Amino acid sequence: MTQTTTKPTLKIIPLGGLHEIGKNTCIFEYEEEIILVDAGLAFPTSEMHGINIVLPDMTYLRENRHKIKGMIATHGHEDHIGGIPYHLKQFDIPIIYGPRLAIALLRDKLEEAGLSDRTTLKTVGPRDIVKMSESFSVEFIRNTHSMADSFTIAIHTPLGVVIHTGDFKIDHTPIDGEYFDLQKLAEHGEKGVLCLLSDSTNSEVPGMTPSERSVYPNLDRIIAQAEGRLMITTFASSVHRVNIILQLAQKHNRKVAVVGRSMLNVIAHARELGYIKCPDDVFIPFKATRNLPDEKLLILTTGSQGETLAALTRISNGEHSHIKVRPGDTIVFSANPIPGNTIAVVNTIDRLMIQGAKVIYGRNQGIHVSGHGAQEEQKLMLALTRPKFFIPVHGEHRMLVKHAQTAQSVGVPAENMVIIRNGDIVELSADSIGIGGQVSSGIELVDQAGIVHEHVMLERQQLAEEGVVTVATAINWEGKLLTPPEIHLRGVVTKVERSLLRQLIIRAIERLLEERWCDFARANNSQGLTVDWGFLQEEIESTLQRLIRRELRTNPLVVLLLQIPEQPIGQDAAPIKTYRRRRSTASVTS
Amino acid sequence: MTQTTTKPTLKIIPLGGLHEIGKNTCIFEYEEEIILVDAGLAFPTSEMHGINIVLPDMTYLRENRHKIKGMIATHGHEDHIGGIPYHLKQFDIPIIYGPRLAIALLRDKLEEAGLSDRTTLKTVGPRDIVKMSESFSVEFIRNTHSMADSFTIAIHTPLGVVIHTGDFKIDHTPIDGEYFDLQKLAEHGEKGVLCLLSDSTNSEVPGMTPSERSVYPNLDRIIAQAEGRLMITTFASSVHRVNIILQLAQKHNRKVAVVGRSMLNVIAHARELGYIKCPDDVFIPFKATRNLPDEKLLILTTGSQGETLAALTRISNGEHSHIKVRPGDTIVFSANPIPGNTIAVVNTIDRLMIQGAKVIYGRNQGIHVSGHGAQEEQKLMLALTRPKFFIPVHGEHRMLVKHAQTAQSVGVPAENMVIIRNGDIVELSADSIGIGGQVSSGIELVDQAGIVHEHVMLERQQLAEEGVVTVATAINWEGKLLTPPEIHLRGVVTKVERSLLRQLIIRAIERLLEERWCDFARANNSQGLTVDWGFLQEEIESTLQRLIRRELRTNPLVVLLLQIPEQPIGQDAAPIKTYRRRRSTASVTS
Repeated sequence: MTQTTTKPTLKIIPLGGLHEIGKNTCIFEYEEEIILVDAGLAFPTSEMHGINIVLPDMTYLRENRHKIKGMIATHGHEDHIGGIPYHLKQFDIPIIYGPRLAIALLRDKLEEAGLSDRTTLKTVGPRDIVKMSESFSVEFIRNTHSMADSFTIAIHTPLGVVIHTGDFKIDHTPIDGEYFDLQKLAEHGEKGVLCLLSDSTNSEVPGMTPSERSVYPNLDRIIAQAEGRLMITTFASSVHRVNIILQLAQKHNRKVAVVGRSMLNVIAHARELGYIKCPDDVFIPFKATRNLPDEKLLILTTGSQGETLAALTRISNGEHSHIKVRPGDTIVFSANPIPGNTIAVVNTIDRLMIQGAKVIYGRNQGIHVSGHGAQEEQKLMLALTRPKFFIPVHGEHRMLVKHAQTAQSVGVPAENMVIIRNGDIVELSADSIGIGGQVSSGIELVDQAGIVHEHVMLERQQLAEEGVVTVATAINWEGKLLTPPEIHLRGVVTKVERSLLRQLIIRAIERLLEERWCDFARANNSQGLTVDWGFLQEEIESTLQRLIRRELRTNPLVVLLLQIPEQPIGQDAAPIKTYRRRRSTASVTS
Repeated sequence: MTQTTTKPTLKIIPLGGLHEIGKNTCIFEYEEEIILVDAGLAFPTSEMHGINIVLPDMTYLRENRHKIKGMIATHGHEDHIGGIPYHLKQFDIPIIYGPRLAIALLRDKLEEAGLSDRTTLKTVGPRDIVKMSESFSVEFIRNTHSMADSFTIAIHTPLGVVIHTGDFKIDHTPIDGEYFDLQKLAEHGEKGVLCLLSDSTNSEVPGMTPSERSVYPNLDRIIAQAEGRLMITTFASSVHRVNIILQLAQKHNRKVAVVGRSMLNVIAHARELGYIKCPDDVFIPFKATRNLPDEKLLILTTGSQGETLAALTRISNGEHSHIKVRPGDTIVFSANPIPGNTIAVVNTIDRLMIQGAKVIYGRNQGIHVSGHGAQEEQKLMLALTRPKFFIPVHGEHRMLVKHAQTAQSVGVPAENMVIIRNGDIVELSADSIGIGGQVSSGIELVDQAGIVHEHVMLERQQLAEEGVVTVATAINWEGKLLTPPEIHLRGVVTKVERSLLRQLIIRAIERLLEERWCDFARANNSQGLTVDWGFLQEEIESTLQRLIRRELRTNPLVVLLLQIPEQPIGQDAAPIKTYRRRRSTASVTS
């Protein structure tokens, strides 16, 4: 014991995935070495206007890039590997280990982003042990999940073994015959596990998550009963589900037309790697389906979450260039809506039904199961690994709390676990666990043009809710309005007469100039007059903002475009005093 | 039969509530007479930026205002009465009949809007029959629902009796002892019901909705076990639930501090009218709770849906001026999230838990039941009334379809029912039902300043997602740039250098002027030069929009503020040709 306390602590620092479902990213740090486990992305909430993806703030890794020895991808879901291309632009990750399917998907991403030469990708198999650095070796333990080829990992450290479950359920009858390697977990449990980090997604759900296989008979019956054309949607990444659907298509003698880029991509890789075994002639390009009778066709499509751009959503909107819904179509949602997507999904279902399709959806159809284990599976994980310390991960706050309660119920003492947030530094020694501080842990929002900063988001928020009033005018060197202001309103609602508004604006600017011109303009001994145009601009803007709030009873963004005249004749070019705006805005001034 | 066919048809025209949950509004029209059943509002979806409420398009009623004989409010929920103040500003409704509680709430609304003198409000009781006009009499049949004092109505028309269920469940053990008047329904069924319009909200749910009373023992246990301060949130309008909570507060010797304006308002009216019987000393103003031990206090609060401005949401954000969460608090969500509110609710729960509260929530706690009947109750309604024709109402498309299937299962022939949309004109005769056309049926969006038109919403959408680029410049009568453009970007992300962007914009405007000045400016024989500044403005804007889309790879709204110079000396004031902009925008030009 005295010896262990002199050893440095192991630091576990999650940058994403805690108090949320998404962007799982976790640092393991020992002395001067860091390994990264997963680097995912999250999808924006409805308030994040114009944002495509959400990433963790990677400041800590940027600042400690020299320590990074490598990375592990536990499996190929976007919330585990989707952030990697963005991060590789900021710092190097010398090597990334992962299962074959995840690495194949990641290779595509890196190629598309032109980053293939920025790291080395290595595939691993079950029970492989990879020496990542002096202090870290990682052992890959086959688990079961909605995506094929998924791993739980055992991280061997100088302080002991830390098990990170990755995403898991315990499916004793997996579709691909790849069983959860419970023996390896038990072996670690027997030898001693220092700490377990375990998936909390379904910690509020009692019992066991049903096996993926339970979906088979229900989909079988539905496909058997479908009389016309059949469309089935599920998550593209749910390789096992796709596998079931392909098997059933063969059984019921339907050709499969795959629609949606991500679905095509995952199927191609899964077939290539043998996770889906299916003869070529099961598939038919959609364009070749013209002469196929309806009852011989199965369209497998993206859009199970009502995503705006997904194929089934476009089909439901009548916007898909090739596929139109016809009465007699049967459309099957083999997926539940993720919270936040419910309205988009039910609206899609309604639109499909209105066009005459029979739509099969809902929890009581038995055509979807979760990829994450419920309470009894979480207990089994704890029972097999018997960890000394426990950290619930991959979940929102109440899920973490519930998982901690579950852990307590199977014998982990409350003082041996921590409920943490992104950015917390968990300090682990051989006989203690605690939070030793925080690193920077915000989010980075990315739209098609790049990182979107917070002030831009605030502007978008105001623009979205209240619109914008733009005022252009010019002021001369005597502090008089040179031209009557030009005023445009966009996204603004008001009952105020335009001419009245213009009069009010003119009067407000004139009054400000009369009363305060000397605050902005100063006679400068040697160089004539100096006008602080930046300061003037800001003061007029805030005056107008107040005026508009008062008169229009709404609070649009006010943008003033102030034309600055040439220096008056007879005076040398006076340096215009630079004024630092209180809020940084992206502006170009003459 | 020959006689009935010569009679005019009864028209049933829903303006809201079909293919949606919300803004229930239904017209019954016979010859020159209209009665209106309910006039509700809906709440905006997340894409409706800055919108407070959503109303049906009332064009048809505006145009037929002379026919309106009166209105019925079936009960006091916002989606049944919330639209009335807005409509009364547009057309007269001579008289509004409704249950006492609904009328009390409505009276408040009209007073607040200064509209008290615009209509007559009349309360009705169970089995009252009101003659609305020559052709319409309305009979009020007590039903059971989450809100107290709710009615199903039987509309007596020259063609027969039409029953509109309003919102209902069939609760045999109602909290207020006001039983569903099943006898009256049965009597109508016996005599003959021409048509039934029935609530479809829970048509996808098998079985019976549990009685409101089933909540009592579970809340009882939770309140008994709470050790410290207790907060309970539910819908303010769920009078029975509030009643249960108040009864349990007395039982467990806790004083009740009511927080949230709508909760205070509903409780005041419900007590006044006797729906809640509760001594004064049960209540305590929050300010007086300082010296009350925690275990003697129950805070009853709004915010069960995570609404941004509701008390519990502000408490969870630490923004409530009086109430801060403390470890030891027990907070109970006696309400399920409405679809679309799930994320707001779970985030509120998480924030409360993080501050140390024990939060009790979720479907398996037995602390919430729906106010709408499930399939077996819908069957009972059909079985009691035995309608000739059936119209499922109050539901999204798939709910209407499911309800129609249920009706078929109990013997209503498929050809005797219609699934309709807002704006459909159902034509009903004694022996036929059909859709005879459509009336205008869009939505009207209202923000704090008034009605928001579609082009404003489109602008807000673009502003929200892409931001705005404003460009101010001046052009002289020779078609030359007078001043370098002033450019501001708000809500825009770009990697393009500011100075480069400005150069590009200058060049684009100059090129346009060089090539096309003669399209805009014409020498006019008698009056000198005429410049079509509006056309010029539009052409520059679309040129810049294309430029910015290409160069910034984003598509912000482009607003050009073009300063128009004085008429050149030596020329008479030329009338500037008016140009009608393709898209109407709220703009002020000098």
